[in-house]
Amino acid sequence: MFDAIGFDADDTLWHNERLFSMTQEKFRGILKEHAPDLVDRQLLDTEKKNLQVFGYGIKGFVLSMIETSIQLTKGGISGNEIEQIMDFGREMLTAPIQLLEHVEDTLQYLQNNYILLLITKGDLIDQETKIARSGLSDYFNSIEIISEKNVPAYQKILDKHQIQPERFLMVGNSIRSDILPVLEMGGTAVYIPYEIDWAHEHDSKPGSSASFHEMTHLGQLPGWLKTMEVKTG
Amino acid sequence: MFDAIGFDADDTLWHNERLFSMTQEKFRGILKEHAPDLVDRQLLDTEKKNLQVFGYGIKGFVLSMIETSIQLTKGGISGNEIEQIMDFGREMLTAPIQLLEHVEDTLQYLQNNYILLLITKGDLIDQETKIARSGLSDYFNSIEIISEKNVPAYQKILDKHQIQPERFLMVGNSIRSDILPVLEMGGTAVYIPYEIDWAHEHDSKPGSSASFHEMTHLGQLPGWLKTMEVKTG
Repeated sequence: MFDAIGFDADDTLWHNERLFSMTQEKFRGILKEHAPDLVDRQLLDTEKKNLQVFGYGIKGFVLSMIETSIQLTKGGISGNEIEQIMDFGREMLTAPIQLLEHVEDTLQYLQNNYILLLITKGDLIDQETKIARSGLSDYFNSIEIISEKNVPAYQKILDKHQIQPERFLMVGNSIRSDILPVLEMGGTAVYIPYEIDWAHEHDSKPGSSASFHEMTHLGQLPGWLKTMEVKTG
Repeated sequence: MFDAIGFDADDTLWHNERLFSMTQEKFRGILKEHAPDLVDRQLLDTEKKNLQVFGYGIKGFVLSMIETSIQLTKGGISGNEIEQIMDFGREMLTAPIQLLEHVEDTLQYLQNNYILLLITKGDLIDQETKIARSGLSDYFNSIEIISEKNVPAYQKILDKHQIQPERFLMVGNSIRSDILPVLEMGGTAVYIPYEIDWAHEHDSKPGSSASFHEMTHLGQLPGWLKTMEVKTG
């Protein structure tokens, strides 16, 4: 049925959005006395504006927090407060990786029967150090860090590994990045929603089809793959 | 003689360090009244300390400038001044790419006879947008953006393209990143120094050998390749 399985990383293999949420809460704490309202909204707007030049990742997030703090305080934020914001970034960049449940068992089980690819978008050094800290590198035949997850980017990866789209399964928590482009290419996609929705994306799930499946956790993947193998004989 | 030629990008194909130097001058202007001395030295120390968590690139440089400005003013720098520093970063990220002399002619000439690889280290989105803005993408068979240029990283790239090290030539301006690891692998390297030395690297040139060559500009590469072909029959 499948030759290769691609896995998203952030919020599919390990907790990530939680770290951003926790940091944003600390950021609100700093701005509490200056400008308690509108922090989340202003930060989101600033992030959206900056995404094209800064890309995804912690450094861009820190720069957006600094920019937001200056705007909301009309320049009144102090250097020491900005230093605290920078320290949040440093903590995020070195925070221990917390794997989601069932991740290690599932990868261990699948590695003998499938080509396993880690396909993640984001900041190169952020992602590389997270993968190293996760201890999961050895389960993957290849690690692909890309700046956008769209059809040409997936196609390039499949070409490189000589994988047919119809023999490719992608697993992830983002409808926009992990599911829709893979379905468009003729692949199959498994959607495992994360506990926190990312504020930048509100995409509708695709209609029910043989190529799209939803699960509640990664531990369900091996069982589902078995039923698929039985079905297709 | 060679099947493939790898090119470094920053300060080999286009001006880059100049943009950092110009920005650093503007940064000194902001700090002039606060703390005129030690700016360059403190910034360099901060950058070195941050390199491992921030990696190479403009976002990391901006964060290091902000941190330095806070330290040197003991927190006295204003939000508006920090906003100016952030604007420097935004200007750098969208600045037009200025190609070095002879670059386009040389690539055009070489593209029919060699596999051309662009091999650059740095921030994924910085590098991708620079490559796009440079207009040079189409000359290259593949573009490789990596976080460190060391022997395993080069080996991985050569394996992917099935290139033997002894049939590989690397061209670049950094002894540490473009020359030494390639020589160590058994490849050949051409060193073209840039007008400004990067403050983070002061490496000695390797001794004279058949595998190491120095040129003053990229326009000399085709002629040199011809003499090499003649020599090796």
